[in-house]
Amino acid sequence: MLRLHSSPDSASMAVRMILEELGLPHEVRVLDRTGGALQSPDYRALHPLGLIPALDTPDGTMFETAAILLWLADRAPQSGLAPAPDSAGRADFLKWLFFTSTNLHPHLLNLFYPDRAAGAANEQAVIAASRDRISTLLAAVEAAAARKPQWLSAEQPTVLGYYLSMLLRWLGSFAADDPRRVNLPDYPALHAVAAYLDTRPAAQSVAAAEGLGPRPFTEPA
Amino acid sequence: MLRLHSSPDSASMAVRMILEELGLPHEVRVLDRTGGALQSPDYRALHPLGLIPALDTPDGTMFETAAILLWLADRAPQSGLAPAPDSAGRADFLKWLFFTSTNLHPHLLNLFYPDRAAGAANEQAVIAASRDRISTLLAAVEAAAARKPQWLSAEQPTVLGYYLSMLLRWLGSFAADDPRRVNLPDYPALHAVAAYLDTRPAAQSVAAAEGLGPRPFTEPA
Repeated sequence: MLRLHSSPDSASMAVRMILEELGLPHEVRVLDRTGGALQSPDYRALHPLGLIPALDTPDGTMFETAAILLWLADRAPQSGLAPAPDSAGRADFLKWLFFTSTNLHPHLLNLFYPDRAAGAANEQAVIAASRDRISTLLAAVEAAAARKPQWLSAEQPTVLGYYLSMLLRWLGSFAADDPRRVNLPDYPALHAVAAYLDTRPAAQSVAAAEGLGPRPFTEPA
Repeated sequence: MLRLHSSPDSASMAVRMILEELGLPHEVRVLDRTGGALQSPDYRALHPLGLIPALDTPDGTMFETAAILLWLADRAPQSGLAPAPDSAGRADFLKWLFFTSTNLHPHLLNLFYPDRAAGAANEQAVIAASRDRISTLLAAVEAAAARKPQWLSAEQPTVLGYYLSMLLRWLGSFAADDPRRVNLPDYPALHAVAAYLDTRPAAQSVAAAEGLGPRPFTEPA
């Protein structure tokens, strides 16, 4: 049995949507992020940093969003969610998966938790640096998406599509006058991926359960 | 043919050692990091951020250190460098590979390039925050290494072992009175992995070519 440790509108969202895409039986445990549940000894035994998501599997508890997404995709190579390990598309897929998880995702977290990177006195400097870097990173990912690779398709679900669309949801959720906001139509290839995934039953089901609105990726509620 | 875009004592080191471990024919292209080669249009066409390493493969040019290491290991599942995709150890391996690439590696880069995270005025605040975070991260990885998993062994080469040992080399390369310095013997399980890999012919060969000293991981030269 798979058990997802989750919180609404957190990074568990993408994992939960992939579990739904794959039709895998799973249990969802909702944790209160503000109530200290993540700092409890029980949860720290599962995840040493007390972060969401974590996924209990028959092979032990996993964490790291991208690791879980990759692991799930590789257990169902026929799903098309990611290129199989021995396929020609694997090299390109892996480089953009890691590009997203090691560059885009950490800089995005800096926008939400700028005090962590350089203390509470330097939040604005952290936001400015990460916002600039995110523009560069998104331009690179947009160029890759514009080549319409199978692993970042606007016509079939993929783990990288869900992962990026979740990050784009958060970047689009800032107010119109907030410098952290990203306007998704500025990245048309990524916009097309997000708009397609908005319509997937798996995304709709999780959006309903977590209160993400009818278009969770292109119109963050 | 595989062609590695490299620079001495940069992240290409781990990729190069894995190429040697696998006995894969490859060409090494040495770039001058200080001479503008990474900003050239030719190199930017291979890597949009102008970073090292990049690896030309029959399936296109790859980047992202961890992506390349994973791709190489998966092409040689019999090598033992990483658990095969359908093996029970895969879940644990992937979570710690991504943990290293999304947490430890970026914070380590902050120690070397603190101006990038929050501007030149806030370098000391960035260093202090990343140094503290690295202590937490290393404690978690040390606990995982102490369980002696196959994928982070002190008795056989692994991609995660090489990746972590490279990061530990850099953390151990600061002067004794530099607050950024990590004293490797404080992490005995990781120290054992690094000490074993120091002796591998693959590591010795690359260390000689790049001037890394006779014990590249445990005694950074």
